[in-house]
Amino acid sequence: MANNKRGRQSFILPQMPVITAWASVAGKKESEGPLAHCFDVTSQDTYFGQKTWEQAEKQMQKLALDTLMKKAGISRQQVGLVFSGDLLNQCIGSSFTLRNTGIPHLGLYGACSTMAESLLLGAMTISGGFSDRVIAMTSSHFASSERQYRFPLGYGGQRTPSAQWTVTGSGAALLCSAGTGPRIESCTLGTVTDLGIKDANNMGAAMAPAAYATIRAHFADLNVGPEGFDRIVTGDLGQLGKDVLLELAKRDGISLGGKLMDCGTMVFDLTEQDVHSGGSGCGCSAITLCGYLLDQLNTGKLNRILFCGTGALLSPTSTQQGLPIPGVCHAVSIIGGQS
Amino acid sequence: MANNKRGRQSFILPQMPVITAWASVAGKKESEGPLAHCFDVTSQDTYFGQKTWEQAEKQMQKLALDTLMKKAGISRQQVGLVFSGDLLNQCIGSSFTLRNTGIPHLGLYGACSTMAESLLLGAMTISGGFSDRVIAMTSSHFASSERQYRFPLGYGGQRTPSAQWTVTGSGAALLCSAGTGPRIESCTLGTVTDLGIKDANNMGAAMAPAAYATIRAHFADLNVGPEGFDRIVTGDLGQLGKDVLLELAKRDGISLGGKLMDCGTMVFDLTEQDVHSGGSGCGCSAITLCGYLLDQLNTGKLNRILFCGTGALLSPTSTQQGLPIPGVCHAVSIIGGQS
Repeated sequence: MANNKRGRQSFILPQMPVITAWASVAGKKESEGPLAHCFDVTSQDTYFGQKTWEQAEKQMQKLALDTLMKKAGISRQQVGLVFSGDLLNQCIGSSFTLRNTGIPHLGLYGACSTMAESLLLGAMTISGGFSDRVIAMTSSHFASSERQYRFPLGYGGQRTPSAQWTVTGSGAALLCSAGTGPRIESCTLGTVTDLGIKDANNMGAAMAPAAYATIRAHFADLNVGPEGFDRIVTGDLGQLGKDVLLELAKRDGISLGGKLMDCGTMVFDLTEQDVHSGGSGCGCSAITLCGYLLDQLNTGKLNRILFCGTGALLSPTSTQQGLPIPGVCHAVSIIGGQS
Repeated sequence: MANNKRGRQSFILPQMPVITAWASVAGKKESEGPLAHCFDVTSQDTYFGQKTWEQAEKQMQKLALDTLMKKAGISRQQVGLVFSGDLLNQCIGSSFTLRNTGIPHLGLYGACSTMAESLLLGAMTISGGFSDRVIAMTSSHFASSERQYRFPLGYGGQRTPSAQWTVTGSGAALLCSAGTGPRIESCTLGTVTDLGIKDANNMGAAMAPAAYATIRAHFADLNVGPEGFDRIVTGDLGQLGKDVLLELAKRDGISLGGKLMDCGTMVFDLTEQDVHSGGSGCGCSAITLCGYLLDQLNTGKLNRILFCGTGALLSPTSTQQGLPIPGVCHAVSIIGGQS
């Protein structure tokens, strides 16, 4: 068998899977933010025409999937596999989206790292010759997340300064063995890292050590450094988590300063939109990637990014039982369509 | 790139990944059932020495992982990747097991199909040359499942005749590119199938159509039939779901009768152990595979099985909102160590 493994956690894709199409769906607040002009579909209706917020989340994924297939010019029958997951208990956003579509589905749980996890697995699947067309997809919804993880919205709970705002949105990307578009050249698998943060309102700090561990592993395994990338993009550390990550890197003598961007600080205007430390949720990195970054890569405005999905692997039960918040981060190195 | 795809949903592994070691951990009731003699570790303590049932589930996975590494004679540092997931909200059984172990982890949510899903993805990973040693793992716990999906145990709710009993147990299997042991020759990806069953106490019936769809796809894609297998093993349809599956196949002129086994009817004594329609949960197929079936395959008592993990993709929220129960089934064809 080929050996595509590099170091402990990384692997290369000798024949790089191509991201030939991508689609994004965003909610009201997201369509008022700095990336407003980037999204394929936006809605002013929090329910997306559905009766519940959970079904609204399903509807967003459905819209992302349908928009993606339309942009790619393919039918359901031509999709080989969908990797997807979300934050809802038992990932019902994803399974109800795929219900009775006839599309093969493998469900993931990587919390807010799901966009990166699904891309990574999609790249493996294409590269191994196990499927021709794989879709990587995820979603999150502010209202379904708030009531599941925190308080009923009607309760009007106060939010701490370190809190983040769950993005209402869904992103989907199509990976193929051939075609034109940005390509995935290598990936780094995350380890579950926990430095003992227990504050469920400070998830950026809980995830930052995992992000740093994965970025450091990617650099070591692939023998690259920050200078090898136009941007190193984390998923949803928010302003506080981003600062922690910069500090962790600095202690090792690595300067990420000029390269590091966090989707949580890109998707919202932190001074105007009252989101405190920034955006979060699976949808945060998904709509930033599928709404903005892939376009930038495709048109040559960016040539190479390290896309680092960050996930906080807590549940309300683990938090109530006094346990800390483990974090994980999976990284995908994507090169531009013009490269 | 190689084309290993077969038909719409299936793929082959030209160089078959080898399952070189496997381990099982089971609870009290499971260690009083027909497979009692098969398990590596059993406990009479529902809490497995922990303070909560959720942590007990984590502890079972930890025991399965540690036992597996011991049986395989490898250290944590030699494990390339763990695919795992469970039924707990946000899969905390799996993430807390891997916390600070340094082992790369990709989280899955496939409900009770997780053992098959993790084997399938592990086989892809090994075959694609992305890792040397991959562990596929899952767990479930009767008490943590009951309180999450149904009623607090202290409430003493009555169980319907169609209800199943969630297995307390964890199974883990090690996949390698070389070595001796049973081998994975092909896999079939499931589609999310829903015929409208809404009774959360009849999950066997909800999953049976998905199981049949996947088995039929495997037969068509790989050009085999029931006669090609010693056993076709479903995960946790229970007696009722198994009967539905037999009937669905019969309508298409396919006789599964002499070949079909269901882990839910193997792991418990249905007449003596008061489990109604049989066992269920991720642990059901996991401990049956990793406690019993892989031994049978390794010693030549079985030569070829189709292992079909079955999952009911409901959540308490979707049920309370009146939605039906989508099912999924992923199939893995395993041949014996003596073949």
